[in-house]
Amino acid sequence: MSGSIGIFDSGLGGLTVLKVLAEKFPQESFCYLGDIARLPYGNKSPETIRKYGLQILKFLKAQDVKALIIACNSASTVFLGEEDFDGIPLLNVIVPGSRAALAAAGRDKRIAVLGTSATVRSGAYATTLKGLDPLVEVIETACPLFVPLVEEGVVGDLITELVALRYLQKIKQENIKTVILGCTHYPVLRGDLRKVLGPEVRLVESGEVLAAELRELFQNGTVPASSLGNTRQIRVCITDLTDHFERLATQLMDPEPIGRLEKVVL
Amino acid sequence: MSGSIGIFDSGLGGLTVLKVLAEKFPQESFCYLGDIARLPYGNKSPETIRKYGLQILKFLKAQDVKALIIACNSASTVFLGEEDFDGIPLLNVIVPGSRAALAAAGRDKRIAVLGTSATVRSGAYATTLKGLDPLVEVIETACPLFVPLVEEGVVGDLITELVALRYLQKIKQENIKTVILGCTHYPVLRGDLRKVLGPEVRLVESGEVLAAELRELFQNGTVPASSLGNTRQIRVCITDLTDHFERLATQLMDPEPIGRLEKVVL
Repeated sequence: MSGSIGIFDSGLGGLTVLKVLAEKFPQESFCYLGDIARLPYGNKSPETIRKYGLQILKFLKAQDVKALIIACNSASTVFLGEEDFDGIPLLNVIVPGSRAALAAAGRDKRIAVLGTSATVRSGAYATTLKGLDPLVEVIETACPLFVPLVEEGVVGDLITELVALRYLQKIKQENIKTVILGCTHYPVLRGDLRKVLGPEVRLVESGEVLAAELRELFQNGTVPASSLGNTRQIRVCITDLTDHFERLATQLMDPEPIGRLEKVVL
Repeated sequence: MSGSIGIFDSGLGGLTVLKVLAEKFPQESFCYLGDIARLPYGNKSPETIRKYGLQILKFLKAQDVKALIIACNSASTVFLGEEDFDGIPLLNVIVPGSRAALAAAGRDKRIAVLGTSATVRSGAYATTLKGLDPLVEVIETACPLFVPLVEEGVVGDLITELVALRYLQKIKQENIKTVILGCTHYPVLRGDLRKVLGPEVRLVESGEVLAAELRELFQNGTVPASSLGNTRQIRVCITDLTDHFERLATQLMDPEPIGRLEKVVL
């Protein structure tokens, strides 16, 4: 797996990121690690999240990756400002997500951030957004039931719509039209969110912004691109294995095919 | 803490058990361990749950407990049939819960079990119930959204009622009137469940059945009772600490007061 791109998330939500990257960079290999044995990260303390994150970065480094991506928003908040791990370029979702949201909002300068409790508690998006543009107004909303709803497949469903209506009440009232999906599970709820917020809402998704960021690292030579004609490999490693997650993985990556999930010990 | 009773759960749900035991045994001390850093157990594999469970039993043994209680249903399924841990009497919730349900059902002999995916997948309640009475009919239903709903305080709420209606459809249709709450979080939803299943439904809760079991161990001398007049102690240890869980702990134990949560490393 030498020269592949390492991606990690607390669970399988980051597959929504892997899917986008695998489509946009068809010659690159990827090694994904989902820390299923210890998910979710969204309600854990920063110290615990950082400890787990470091174990995973070490594991991915041992797979000889050329770049590291923290797809997990909760984990990104505790590695903010760190541009490499032991010399390997390290991307997180917060900074590119904030830049993309500002570009999408344009002159409106009002941005909503949806995330887990840990991501919202950290205030990482608000700090980053205001650092990039002091005039921006930010509403951060924790949506802790979205992850279990996605994991149970309750999507395009009245229950999810009611939950979304409750979480998004203020955003809807204030007619905010740029929304950062600050959790890798949330793109699965794209349809439910548009139903509540209106079809014209601009949803900023981690997969798209990380693809743009990675392209820049290839172009400026920070990360060497793989040569065309290589046989690419996509490995999906997880720290626990249940039937439930095999089904969820297939559903999140669809139509991109994935091989068997590999169980690994950190 | 010598001579106290050790209780563990994947998170704070087991506090619904601790609360009942603390009320019924006012002279006993308790040491509770909630493995918050790695919850939930309900969607993990049996191997992973057993590994975590053994670490916790070792930790509690080191606190010099005289009895060990696995309040977590998912963890109980992987320690079934084990009556002690290193010589210390070990109770799980499955066997006493099954006995209590059979007694409550009487001649009806139809019992429903609500639990996490891991508990239902294990079939532990069905196997135990049929072992005790081969004529019993058992319906086991996984209710994976109940735990996050309780943890987010969405209780006595339209959303929870809709979720319950969906999970309990078959139980309602078949008019089953004895229901084992096979997860320590579920007693918090008592009101929501009665609203869907009718006020006459018999809900079998882990706290009550463990109290009866523990009383038996005191009476037959397997576990020595503490002498009256001792100053009792109730310790609540957790493997991670966030504000959210401090609030949840107070709410679950109410009106029983608890001291500060202690963060421990396993």
